[in-house]
Amino acid sequence: MVILNKLLAQIFIPKFFSTMSLESSKRVAAYKAVDEWVKPNTAIGIGSGSTVIYAVERLKQRVVNENIKVFCVPTSFQARQLIISNGLILSDLEAHPELDCAIDGADEADANLTLIKGGGGCLLQEKVVASCAQSLIIVADYTKDSTKLGQQYRKGIPIEVVPMAYVPVKRKIEGLFGGSVNLRMSVAKAGPCVTDNGNFLLDWQFPTDADSDWAAVNRDILMIPGVVESGLFVNMVRKAYFGLADGNVTERC
Amino acid sequence: MVILNKLLAQIFIPKFFSTMSLESSKRVAAYKAVDEWVKPNTAIGIGSGSTVIYAVERLKQRVVNENIKVFCVPTSFQARQLIISNGLILSDLEAHPELDCAIDGADEADANLTLIKGGGGCLLQEKVVASCAQSLIIVADYTKDSTKLGQQYRKGIPIEVVPMAYVPVKRKIEGLFGGSVNLRMSVAKAGPCVTDNGNFLLDWQFPTDADSDWAAVNRDILMIPGVVESGLFVNMVRKAYFGLADGNVTERC
Repeated sequence: MVILNKLLAQIFIPKFFSTMSLESSKRVAAYKAVDEWVKPNTAIGIGSGSTVIYAVERLKQRVVNENIKVFCVPTSFQARQLIISNGLILSDLEAHPELDCAIDGADEADANLTLIKGGGGCLLQEKVVASCAQSLIIVADYTKDSTKLGQQYRKGIPIEVVPMAYVPVKRKIEGLFGGSVNLRMSVAKAGPCVTDNGNFLLDWQFPTDADSDWAAVNRDILMIPGVVESGLFVNMVRKAYFGLADGNVTERC
Repeated sequence: MVILNKLLAQIFIPKFFSTMSLESSKRVAAYKAVDEWVKPNTAIGIGSGSTVIYAVERLKQRVVNENIKVFCVPTSFQARQLIISNGLILSDLEAHPELDCAIDGADEADANLTLIKGGGGCLLQEKVVASCAQSLIIVADYTKDSTKLGQQYRKGIPIEVVPMAYVPVKRKIEGLFGGSVNLRMSVAKAGPCVTDNGNFLLDWQFPTDADSDWAAVNRDILMIPGVVESGLFVNMVRKAYFGLADGNVTERC
């Protein structure tokens, strides 16, 4: 029995603690960013993903404890639900086209804070909202903190496309830049993954020796007819907070 | 009675003949383009608008008379209906991502064959299909033949945007380039005009002294998050046919 317990501990406890520390690293980053950036009586963007859940959790605490008013513009269905379920004030870019900040996650951030976003499929609304914010603030755990895109996040760069164009866009990207482009398939239904905006997603596995002039790559991708948005966020980040397993936060800007 | 007839003739007959000559000028341009560019056993793009109706009419005649096979990729709901109702072979960019030519209309073509398209709201699919064609062939009546954009077509440059972004995109375009940007409203229903792709349309009334580096303007518009496509077609046209009232055709390339 003792031996069995030891065996179970070896298998399960490290994974349990590793999951806990990943979650706590997300939380500590999100809390710090919300504490430092959210000001009373402002409109802000609410990003998508697992770390943003903690940002909204902290935002709710601040709104209640400090009795402040913050208008929240969502970047996805998920963000909208988070805002509503936490009793925060839901707004949009028609009412608030200028945002003080947007707090969002990332799949990977390189040394220049160029981001890959869209693993969760919400890149389009995320980039629109970020483009309306004075400051885009990134919150993430330490596994997203990278020096070169592709070192940490292996699923490629997501690209949102209109459904009728997915084949020609795939061929054009492969022709222009190399690598391989795959249509993201749905898991919960047959066929392709459809975004909150009714589009398809391509995931571009770029060559490891790819041009690192990501501004130029992003521009060239956006010029392809049928591309709605790319998951490359270049020169958009004001500051990024990466939570560590020990409870500290790495800050970069 | 004689006086009344004369009066009616003065009012109605010139308008009747003017409409007839505009229609016949569309037909002669469309017929010539289809005769010169459509080859047997190819896939081609079918544009949208009033002149394309004549192109499809001629295409049907050629398919029947010459017993040829042509795969037709539509640029809109209208084009799809035209293909089906004329008994032509309907295809798409998944089956045929490379097209021999695309035959489409335009709202205006300047001296460099830079186009304004999208008055009919189909610019996105039109540009995707055009980008897959070896040759984009424009068919239009003489009122679309211009030297400078805005001389003939006064409704501005259409820009397709995701609905949630229409206010920030409007503000950004006005801020970057000047002029005024208006959300296109629907006539057959309350509220905004919604495209075949579920997006909104902005019409940008650009300043008359606007930068005529339309390639740069188009690129800058496409870089704005929330913009899906612009109605500026720059360096895309292989040849344009403008039908004249006298039955002749002006050709430009």
